[in-house]
Amino acid sequence: MRWSRYFLFTTREVPADADVVSHQLMSRTGMIKKLAAGIYIYQPLGWRSLKKTIEIVRREMDEAGAIELAMPSIQPAVLWHETGRWEKYGKELLRIQDRHDREFCFGPTHEEVITDLVRGEIKSYRQLPVNLYQIQTKFRDEIRPRFGLMRGREFLMKDAYSFDVDRDGMGASYEAMRDAYQRIFEGCKLDFTVVEADSGTIGGEYSHEFMVLADTGESQVVSCPECNYAANVERAEASCEQADDEPAAEREELATPGAKTIDEVTALLDIDAAKLVKTLLYEADGEVVAVAVRGDHEVNEVKLQNHLAALQLHLAGDAAVEKATGAPVGFAGPVGLADGVRLISDRAIEGLCNFVVGANLADTHLGGVNWGRDAQPDAFVDLRVVAGGDACPRCGHALRETRGIETGHTFQLGALYSEPMGCTYTDGSGETHPMLMGCYGLGVGRTLAAAIEQNHDDDGIIWPLPLAPFEVLLASLNAKDDAVRGACDSLYESLCAVGVEVLYDDRDERPGVKFNDADLLGIPVRIVLGGRGLANGQAELSLRRDREKHDVALESVVERTTELLRELS
Amino acid sequence: MRWSRYFLFTTREVPADADVVSHQLMSRTGMIKKLAAGIYIYQPLGWRSLKKTIEIVRREMDEAGAIELAMPSIQPAVLWHETGRWEKYGKELLRIQDRHDREFCFGPTHEEVITDLVRGEIKSYRQLPVNLYQIQTKFRDEIRPRFGLMRGREFLMKDAYSFDVDRDGMGASYEAMRDAYQRIFEGCKLDFTVVEADSGTIGGEYSHEFMVLADTGESQVVSCPECNYAANVERAEASCEQADDEPAAEREELATPGAKTIDEVTALLDIDAAKLVKTLLYEADGEVVAVAVRGDHEVNEVKLQNHLAALQLHLAGDAAVEKATGAPVGFAGPVGLADGVRLISDRAIEGLCNFVVGANLADTHLGGVNWGRDAQPDAFVDLRVVAGGDACPRCGHALRETRGIETGHTFQLGALYSEPMGCTYTDGSGETHPMLMGCYGLGVGRTLAAAIEQNHDDDGIIWPLPLAPFEVLLASLNAKDDAVRGACDSLYESLCAVGVEVLYDDRDERPGVKFNDADLLGIPVRIVLGGRGLANGQAELSLRRDREKHDVALESVVERTTELLRELS
Repeated sequence: MRWSRYFLFTTREVPADADVVSHQLMSRTGMIKKLAAGIYIYQPLGWRSLKKTIEIVRREMDEAGAIELAMPSIQPAVLWHETGRWEKYGKELLRIQDRHDREFCFGPTHEEVITDLVRGEIKSYRQLPVNLYQIQTKFRDEIRPRFGLMRGREFLMKDAYSFDVDRDGMGASYEAMRDAYQRIFEGCKLDFTVVEADSGTIGGEYSHEFMVLADTGESQVVSCPECNYAANVERAEASCEQADDEPAAEREELATPGAKTIDEVTALLDIDAAKLVKTLLYEADGEVVAVAVRGDHEVNEVKLQNHLAALQLHLAGDAAVEKATGAPVGFAGPVGLADGVRLISDRAIEGLCNFVVGANLADTHLGGVNWGRDAQPDAFVDLRVVAGGDACPRCGHALRETRGIETGHTFQLGALYSEPMGCTYTDGSGETHPMLMGCYGLGVGRTLAAAIEQNHDDDGIIWPLPLAPFEVLLASLNAKDDAVRGACDSLYESLCAVGVEVLYDDRDERPGVKFNDADLLGIPVRIVLGGRGLANGQAELSLRRDREKHDVALESVVERTTELLRELS
Repeated sequence: MRWSRYFLFTTREVPADADVVSHQLMSRTGMIKKLAAGIYIYQPLGWRSLKKTIEIVRREMDEAGAIELAMPSIQPAVLWHETGRWEKYGKELLRIQDRHDREFCFGPTHEEVITDLVRGEIKSYRQLPVNLYQIQTKFRDEIRPRFGLMRGREFLMKDAYSFDVDRDGMGASYEAMRDAYQRIFEGCKLDFTVVEADSGTIGGEYSHEFMVLADTGESQVVSCPECNYAANVERAEASCEQADDEPAAEREELATPGAKTIDEVTALLDIDAAKLVKTLLYEADGEVVAVAVRGDHEVNEVKLQNHLAALQLHLAGDAAVEKATGAPVGFAGPVGLADGVRLISDRAIEGLCNFVVGANLADTHLGGVNWGRDAQPDAFVDLRVVAGGDACPRCGHALRETRGIETGHTFQLGALYSEPMGCTYTDGSGETHPMLMGCYGLGVGRTLAAAIEQNHDDDGIIWPLPLAPFEVLLASLNAKDDAVRGACDSLYESLCAVGVEVLYDDRDERPGVKFNDADLLGIPVRIVLGGRGLANGQAELSLRRDREKHDVALESVVERTTELLRELS
C-alpha cells in the first residue's frame, strides 16, 4: 500500500481521555477514532490488525472443531425474560424499543440466543456434542467507558458455546477451548497466563481468564512459581492459617480515644495488626451484614458477594453502622451487635485467640476476645484479598503478584441456561436431561490493545508480527528524486510480488517525519532507501524491536526481508 | 466437513411467513433461522455462503483501490441533526437512548459518520481522492419486514463512500465502483443488469441499481434490446409523444351518468383511452395537487414526488377531491378546478388536441378540450409509468420488461452531505470547496437470496459455485457398512487434501433422504458411493445443475472432481 493513496494520518495529539498507552498509541497512529463515548471507528490501519486477529482466532477455533455461525446484534427481550437476566443484567444492557414498541436489546452476550437455537434443533444425545462460535459486534452500556478499545461500549468479540450430554463431555469441550485459546495467544506472539477466575454476571461453576501480561494491566494476578497455581486476585484462594495455641485470657475494655484506623489502634495498644480483628458493615440487597477480617487483611468483595449470593453489595452508610453497632463509625466489633445483624468472618481468623476488636462503644476496643465465649460468626469463609507474598493455597510457596489484561474468559456453565430455557436432549433410554454448556469469550479489540500495552516503548508500538497491520515499512528518503523514487517503486513492487505486506512511505515528507512515524507505527521490519544508499547500491534494513541498522545490497533486500519475516513469525 | 459433526438440520417445513422461494429454501436448508421479525441467525451453512460473498466483494473493492475500515453500528444523533435526517428519516431509523439518556441510532447507513471522519482528517486537495468501504451490520426498522434476507431489519451490507475534488473526479470514482460491481456480480456468476434508478432517501443526482434478474424479483425493469438503455420503472423515462395534428373543435358537455372509470367512459363515448385525460388528486405535504395523465397511462408516484420535492405524498381523500372539484369522485378534470389547486400534466398529453376530461360536475365529461383555450397546467413533466412495449427514450425501439432484485445501488451525491456538514478541502490557490461524494451500497445477504431466486428448481437450490457453501457433496450410501465407510472416508480425506471443500454426508440415513437433501442443498458437484459402486470400483459423479450421472473409477474421482470444479468456476 502506498501511503500517499492510503487513509492514514498520524498525530502527536493525545485525546484528553486517553489514560492508557494503547489508547494513546492507537489514536496517535490513526488506528482508531472515537465516534462517541466508548464507540470507536476502526480506521483502515486499525482494521487491518483487527482482521489479522480475527483470522488467528478463526483458524484456531476451526482447528478445535468449533463451528462458525453469526447471530444478530438485536435480540428479543422475551428470551432474556426466560433466564431472568432482563431484570438482573442492570443498566449495561442497552434496551431498545422498535417502531411497534416491542422490547429488544443490543446483545452484550449470546447465551439466550444460542440456547434458543440449539433447543430448537437438537433433540438427541446422538447429535451432541456441538460447539458453535461467532465473531461479532456486542454492546455493553458501561457507565464510564474508558481506555479506548480496552473498555469500550461497542466492541468486537469472539464468543463460543459448547453443548454436551454430561460433565465429562463438558470438561472435554472446555479443555479443547482452553487449548485453542492457548494457541490463539501463542499465535498472536503474546506473553500470557491462564488464571482461575470469578464467573461474574455470566455465572456458572468453573472459569478461567486468559491474561495478557502487562505492567499497565487492570487485573491483578497472583501465581505460584512452584506449582503453577495462578488466579485473578478477585478469585485467588487464601491458604489456611494455623491456629494460635495460647490459653484464653480475660476479656477487657481498652480505652482507645479517637483511634479508629488499624494503624492508630495498633500504635496505641502496641499490638501487631495480625492480632486485631476489624469489622466492616456492608449492605447486601438491603440487609446489613458485619464482616470480620484480620487487621492486616482486606475484604475481597467479590468473594463476599458470591458467598452472600447478593445482587447488590456496598459498604453501609454511617447511619446504618451506628444503628447496627450503637457506636460512632470506627469502633465496630463482633461483640454485642444489634439484633438481626449477621456476622461473617474470614477463615484466617478462625484460629485466632485473645484478639482485639472494636467494642461497639465510642473510643473503646475490647482485648482478650475469643470466638465461642465472646462472639460467634454465622460462618468462617474465605473472604480476604490474596496478595503477593501470601502462601500458595496449593503448595504453600510464596505467591508472586503480576498485572495482566483479561482478553479471554472461559466458563463451565453446566445447566445454568439450559435448565430454565428447557434446552434438553433425550438419552439412549428415552430420558430427557438439560444439556451441559460451556461458554468462551475472547475480546478481539481488547487483545489488540493488550498487545500494545505489552509491546511498546516511548516512541511507539512494537508490533508482534502476526498482529502488525503491515509486515514491512518501506521509506523512501528524497521522494522527489526520480532515481530514488524509481528504485523504491521497484523495491515495493518486488516485495509485493512475493506476497510481502508493505506500507510504502512514498510521501513527500522530511526524513525526520518518516522516521518518527515509522517508530510510532511499529511495523516490524523497516527498509530505508535514499540518495546516498542508492549511490552505494544499498538499502538500510532494521527491526523495530531493536532498531539496529544493517546495510543490505539492493539486489538482496527482498531475500533478506523474507528471511527476517520467517524469523519473526 | 462431516455432516455427523456439523450443525445442519434440513426440514420440509416452510415458515408460515416465507412467501418467496429464497426465504423458503434458506429456511428449509437450515441456512438461516428467524430470531424475530426481520432478524435472522445465519446458521453455519448460511454463514459459509455469506463469508464467500463477503470475500468476493472485498476482493473487488480492494482491487478497485477502495480502502476498508469498520464503522460502529451505534451512531450519535448529533451527526444526523447536522444533515437534518434525524427528523426526515422516519420510523425506519431505530432510535436508541443510552443509560445517560443520550440519543443514538442503530445506523441504517453511514453517510454522516464517514463524512464526519473525512472532514476531520482531510484538509487538502493533495489528499484526495479517497474511497472508503466497510462490510458491516445495519438496521432498518421496516414496518413489514418480509422475504427473509431480502427485506430484513438487521442485515449485512457493503457500503463505500468516495470523496473527490470535482465532478470529473466524482465521475471517475463512480465509474470505478460501477466496474467493481460488475466484477462482483460476474464473480458471483449471477445474471444481472445495471439500470438507471431513483435516488430515494439517500438523495443525490445520479444513481444506478444493480439488478439480479429473476422472475420473482420485486423490481420491474425496462430495457432496450437495441441501445442498452435500462432503468427501474420507478425511474424509467417516457419517450416524447408526437403532437396531434387536427383543428381545435368546440368544447362540449357530454352526459356520462355513472361512468367513472376509464373503461366505462371510453365504452360509453366510444373513444380511445389515448384520447381521454384522467385527473387524479394528490395531497403533497398537505397541499392538494391535480395530476393529469393519458387515460391509458399510469401516474409514477416516485416521479411525481421528486418533481414536487414532497416528503409525503398520497392520493387525496374523497372530501378533499370534492372540495377541489366541486363534484363527486370520478368526474375530476382540469377545467374549472377550485382556486389554489395546482395542475400538473404528464408530458405525453402536451400535444393532445380535442380530448375528453372529467367536467368537475356529477355524471358529466367535457369533449373537444384543448390546452391553452380551456385549461393550462403549471407544467408538463414526465410523470408516467413506463412499461414494456413503450418506445425507448433513447432510440425509440420497443422496450422489454423484466423483473429483478436490487442488490446494489450506486449514487452520485455531489455536495449533498459534505455541504451541510462542512466537509471541505483547500485547493491549490487556498480556496475551500465542499468535497463531492459518491456512495455505493451492496446488500450481501440480499445478493445471496437473489442468487437463490435466480438459481433453483422444485427440488431445491442450484448454487453457482462461487457462492456455494461447499463445492462438493460426498454421500455415502450404506454408511453402516465398514467397507463403504472406509472407502468414503478415504475419498473425503483425499479431496480435503487437495483443498476441495467437501460436505461429507456420513449420516446413518436412507439413500432417499440423502438424495433429497443433496437436491435441496444444491451443492454443485455430487459424489455418491455405495456397496454396488464399491464392488465395481466406481463412484457416481453428477452436477446439481443437470443431475446427469457419470460413473467414474474410484482412483480418478479426485482428478475428475477438480476438473469439474475448474469448469464451473
